[in-house]
Amino acid sequence: MSLTTETIAQDFPKLSLLTGEDSAARQLSFGVNEPCPAMGIARPRSTEELAALVKRCNDEGQPLIVGGGLTNMVGATLAKPEDLIISTELMTGIEEINTDDRVVVVEAGAKLQDVHDAVAEHGLALEADLGARGTATIGGMISTNAGGNRVVRYGMMREQVLGLEVVLADGTVLSSMNRVLKNNAGYDLKQLFIGSEGTLGIVTRAVLRLRELPAHVSTLFLALPSYEAVCSLLRHLDHGSAGTMSTFEVMWNSYYRLVTTPPAEGKPPLAQDYPFYVLAEIGGADKDTTEALALRLVETATEKELIADGLLAKNEAEREKLWALRDDIGQVLQLYPMAAFDISVPLSKMPQYLEDMEAALRAEYPDNRSVIFGHLGDSNIHVIVGPGTDKDEDLHRVEELVYAPLPEVAGTVSAEHGVGLYKKNFLHLSRTPEEIEIMKRLKRQFDPKNILNRGKIFEL
Amino acid sequence: MSLTTETIAQDFPKLSLLTGEDSAARQLSFGVNEPCPAMGIARPRSTEELAALVKRCNDEGQPLIVGGGLTNMVGATLAKPEDLIISTELMTGIEEINTDDRVVVVEAGAKLQDVHDAVAEHGLALEADLGARGTATIGGMISTNAGGNRVVRYGMMREQVLGLEVVLADGTVLSSMNRVLKNNAGYDLKQLFIGSEGTLGIVTRAVLRLRELPAHVSTLFLALPSYEAVCSLLRHLDHGSAGTMSTFEVMWNSYYRLVTTPPAEGKPPLAQDYPFYVLAEIGGADKDTTEALALRLVETATEKELIADGLLAKNEAEREKLWALRDDIGQVLQLYPMAAFDISVPLSKMPQYLEDMEAALRAEYPDNRSVIFGHLGDSNIHVIVGPGTDKDEDLHRVEELVYAPLPEVAGTVSAEHGVGLYKKNFLHLSRTPEEIEIMKRLKRQFDPKNILNRGKIFEL
Repeated sequence: MSLTTETIAQDFPKLSLLTGEDSAARQLSFGVNEPCPAMGIARPRSTEELAALVKRCNDEGQPLIVGGGLTNMVGATLAKPEDLIISTELMTGIEEINTDDRVVVVEAGAKLQDVHDAVAEHGLALEADLGARGTATIGGMISTNAGGNRVVRYGMMREQVLGLEVVLADGTVLSSMNRVLKNNAGYDLKQLFIGSEGTLGIVTRAVLRLRELPAHVSTLFLALPSYEAVCSLLRHLDHGSAGTMSTFEVMWNSYYRLVTTPPAEGKPPLAQDYPFYVLAEIGGADKDTTEALALRLVETATEKELIADGLLAKNEAEREKLWALRDDIGQVLQLYPMAAFDISVPLSKMPQYLEDMEAALRAEYPDNRSVIFGHLGDSNIHVIVGPGTDKDEDLHRVEELVYAPLPEVAGTVSAEHGVGLYKKNFLHLSRTPEEIEIMKRLKRQFDPKNILNRGKIFEL
Repeated sequence: MSLTTETIAQDFPKLSLLTGEDSAARQLSFGVNEPCPAMGIARPRSTEELAALVKRCNDEGQPLIVGGGLTNMVGATLAKPEDLIISTELMTGIEEINTDDRVVVVEAGAKLQDVHDAVAEHGLALEADLGARGTATIGGMISTNAGGNRVVRYGMMREQVLGLEVVLADGTVLSSMNRVLKNNAGYDLKQLFIGSEGTLGIVTRAVLRLRELPAHVSTLFLALPSYEAVCSLLRHLDHGSAGTMSTFEVMWNSYYRLVTTPPAEGKPPLAQDYPFYVLAEIGGADKDTTEALALRLVETATEKELIADGLLAKNEAEREKLWALRDDIGQVLQLYPMAAFDISVPLSKMPQYLEDMEAALRAEYPDNRSVIFGHLGDSNIHVIVGPGTDKDEDLHRVEELVYAPLPEVAGTVSAEHGVGLYKKNFLHLSRTPEEIEIMKRLKRQFDPKNILNRGKIFEL
């Protein structure tokens, strides 16, 4: 069953609806350059308009794909010709900032950077940050439970969400717009819609908790002699900063060389000879105290031989240059054709995992090239592997080799990006059959006609 | 349908089972002194033993009540003669502390204080703390999503849980023992069992995240001139401490006088003349820096006229004395007979709520006496009201008067204690009909025979 865009246009005359060439011209997803094949793109302006449309689609069994900033990394926004896309691009409102309650209320289509800017004017911060901040929407970040680079201190997007308004598959508006940190009146239903990638309901509005905007952030860039030093430094900085270390990013030597050697534009602030590089940030109350603390922590870390070399960014420009290296992920295209991975491995098991995985890779692909970098503070690494051939089946084989050793080390096939389409075939490596069966039961309960992001995460 | 204890003893010969006088002698719940009326108390020693028993109970439709430390505040552990109690008291193991991964793996019956002590030996902390720490179990804290006094910085119990193992109503062992901060491989099923008060499944094991144990905690006790000053001070301390303020407890003058005047044993460290008193803690990296910071923040707060008087605890003994005042909640018995409330109100609405609520109280109970104190940093206050009569129906009427103004201010009838039995009749004030219907649908899905903590939170 389905609808046609003509029927939708007729029955919802006020709804902004893109069809034909207007729809085909739209991108499906970051990096996907083919014409959008969906029947059309509906752009509701309000929860009520969205809910009415969803109700109608449910009545007709019309499958829906929800799109926000389209920066999804696992194909969750990819659509087929029979799909109707619902875009939140006209629901971008930042409705309220309350400085006593320290919350912001937003529509799902609000962009992360816009929220950052709006709350910063009040000395507040939404402590969730990632590279796509200019494009990613709050709704998308909630539906994927986005991670990013402040998780080790502040948690995932889930931990920033106090309240949600969602539209269920049958058009019901479920309002759980809680505004307080402590609310144990019944089941915390909003948790179902965080991280379930739009398959159980559509996020339309959210209440997000805010923190005090740090008066000053000190950025350290350090070269380390070993993996053990990395683990020790993580605790050293976290302990020594009294938990104000908000970021702990690691680059293996492979990635560091990649982003500091032509054709990359970046220049190496430290010699390229070390096995590990750490970009760490400490959020403090004032510049002098925070910088003094950072330098003292570097001093004590050096005494403990955790650091071989290092520097403290002197100003915002230097800080941005350091982040530009970390964020110059486009350089991984030098490994093309390659497979990119977003995995977590417990820190205690990381060396074992990488050793086993890299040995297996080398055995089958002796010319493979790989780089590793990531949010190691929260166990998340991004591994990019170019097998050294140009066959699709080799990229698939690489996926198997990278994922296979994960269950044994209690790692996960998806740290922050979600499952979407691309990781469906590997979900069983990270979740038990009982868990997957319960996910399917929940899906059937919340979306009996299977219209919401059909085929994402698992097949029913 | 049901089982008998004879059948259970026969079919599970190794199961530790208390019946008859041994069972009747047990307490049902903190403060409840009648004989335990349940048919018996089963004390499994392992997940497997617990799961086998639950499966059998489900086959027979035998209702179950799960008990941990029995410090529940809303009657969730109260049992009837037809109930079988499952106690986790023999599943107290702290199975693993991993200092690289900064996690602890525990059985559900492990006591909070024991976990604190065990991880502290490694310089780590489970950042969830509450008064009942010597008795409350991890399983109970997870099933209620316990709050406590560090929520403003570290979040609720939910935010400390990385992984769970639960036994479902049909005896299935659902293992989601995730060990990493970032894991977005599919639905985060563990969220269903956190805060659902044992009605969807029984928590048997957990992986909890740990933070660095602060090297030093500075404790401030301050007297404030107004509610506006309280709100401003919260942001002042949080901002000025770079988010290392871990606790912000508030006592209204009524409570402060109660705990610093005989028959209370406490002596007032500050004059009893101020409308508000704040106990705040800052977790720092070393004594000197943290104390200097605390004093500086007090100085600047005084310049802004946020503080009328104050002191910094000089040592652990002084700190304990201050907490003893805050925790001397037994003094509220002076208001007996009284009703005790655990509510949240957004800080911006607190004055309006209290004014409306107290006016309504005074109109019907001119002799009423009340005290207010709580974790104001996270919007949670405890209100104790003695209507001044000794009739039960007056206590019920007080409940109505305290809860009635909450929906208008987006407050909640249960901040941290849960709903259990005692707040069932008020759930509708904090959750919409659509939400309650979905809770019931989830309950029916996960526990079709309604054997787990039947009748708690809502009636099916």
